[in-house]
Amino acid sequence: MTQTHLIAVDWGTSRFRAYRLDAAGAVLERVAAEDGMASVPPGGFAGVLERHCGAWMREAPAAPVLMAGMVGSRNGWAEAAYAVCPASPASVAASLLAVTERVSIVPGVIARGPGGPDVMRGEETLVFGADVADGLVCLPGTHSKWARVEAGAIADFATFMTGESYALYRNQSLLGRLAVEPEDLTGFDDGLEAARAPGGVLNRLFQARARVLDGVMDGPAVGPYLSGLLIGTEIEGALQRFGAADTVTLVADGVLAQRYVAALRSRGIVIEIVTPENAFLAGLSALAEARA
Amino acid sequence: MTQTHLIAVDWGTSRFRAYRLDAAGAVLERVAAEDGMASVPPGGFAGVLERHCGAWMREAPAAPVLMAGMVGSRNGWAEAAYAVCPASPASVAASLLAVTERVSIVPGVIARGPGGPDVMRGEETLVFGADVADGLVCLPGTHSKWARVEAGAIADFATFMTGESYALYRNQSLLGRLAVEPEDLTGFDDGLEAARAPGGVLNRLFQARARVLDGVMDGPAVGPYLSGLLIGTEIEGALQRFGAADTVTLVADGVLAQRYVAALRSRGIVIEIVTPENAFLAGLSALAEARA
Repeated sequence: MTQTHLIAVDWGTSRFRAYRLDAAGAVLERVAAEDGMASVPPGGFAGVLERHCGAWMREAPAAPVLMAGMVGSRNGWAEAAYAVCPASPASVAASLLAVTERVSIVPGVIARGPGGPDVMRGEETLVFGADVADGLVCLPGTHSKWARVEAGAIADFATFMTGESYALYRNQSLLGRLAVEPEDLTGFDDGLEAARAPGGVLNRLFQARARVLDGVMDGPAVGPYLSGLLIGTEIEGALQRFGAADTVTLVADGVLAQRYVAALRSRGIVIEIVTPENAFLAGLSALAEARA
Repeated sequence: MTQTHLIAVDWGTSRFRAYRLDAAGAVLERVAAEDGMASVPPGGFAGVLERHCGAWMREAPAAPVLMAGMVGSRNGWAEAAYAVCPASPASVAASLLAVTERVSIVPGVIARGPGGPDVMRGEETLVFGADVADGLVCLPGTHSKWARVEAGAIADFATFMTGESYALYRNQSLLGRLAVEPEDLTGFDDGLEAARAPGGVLNRLFQARARVLDGVMDGPAVGPYLSGLLIGTEIEGALQRFGAADTVTLVADGVLAQRYVAALRSRGIVIEIVTPENAFLAGLSALAEARA
């Protein structure tokens, strides 16, 4: 068996993923399970780690175990205090929280800009692995993150409740009752355009209903309109906050990546894509190296 | 018994209200019930009207019955086609839909501006009753309406999903889990300020969570913050859409009126207040007069 150099754990609210890496950062073996932080009872974290990674740990007693994500939150294994922006791999590695002799948690990062605080936990590792020295990194999701990277450090960042808002409006609001499957994706472009029109998002949300009542939009376009409107609103807000950008590095895959690519391209932005898994692995390796 | 001149019915989705008015528009008698449009089975509308207003109608066989609200929607008594902006009391009265010889439904209004269509049903009557010749009228609620009135006609308007969004985020989102009662109203002013900060509402929503995690906001302030942020975002959007205003006429009462007054005052706007009931009665009387 090739020598294990690092055991990398991505332990979020709803999922557990672990990787056995060699000295070059290549994946030798991986495990994925539903044992997210939220489903682990107090005191149960060491047992879950042992169940999934115990064999790897015994075979390579010298390899450190580094964990990132919500496992380091108040309701996780142990609370790892936020590292403060500007946060570099070196400053975050210096703040690792050891929960056993060989197992450590990567702290989240807090920004305390003039507009109020913002927090991330797990995404800092993906930003470090996005291979950006200076520029904007976008990580779409339930709570999308945009980070401004300077000299390899997270200088500032902002969170957008885009994915959670989409789910609320799509499933729980008046608009959800108008939406019909299968979807008509032309609605997505209409939503992107609506995000730039005067009136703001609260007005443009209602307009889905008005368009349906006026017969200029059909039910299959409602869900994609909502998606385009919210993603477009996020991008408008991020560019307003961090300034116009020629290039954005997108950490995403699948349908979400496709939608953000379309949204960013419609604003003339050049996109570099990194998958979340690759960003995680590169970021955790960078943190392990910064510590060593 | 004083002569009944008009029977005015405000028949919305969830409530039924009727008024017996004299020739001067004064209320002689009123009834309120839970028989909203949504709870009336198909074909049941005439029966509900008879139950609440039959005695009035028999006592004053010459008095017309005018009904406004969702009773004129697709799922109401009969669908009254929207009057098109610019919509004056005269043009709306000319489009009344008669469902019996003496009972008519006030049509809603549709705006077809460059930014796409918008619709109202019921609020047109309140706007006509707000006693505004030229200016902006704001009707806060689940779906807040802002109307630009010119020479007594609704020239244009926009709807904002403010109240529905508040309920979604307060009751169904991650933020709702952070909110604690009783409320700390200082959060409302923080939310109003956040609505004007760069980043947009999707960012400022998440910031409630970041502020709580960072210890700069407590649970009792979360609900009011959310309210201030959404009301502030609505006002920003309305002023962006219709231009800056020195004076706004607010059709509201109770806590909602207090919150909008505070939000508008914080932007230096002078407020005229009309209660929804007074606006409804004056508006329906104006429509009856315009028809006569």
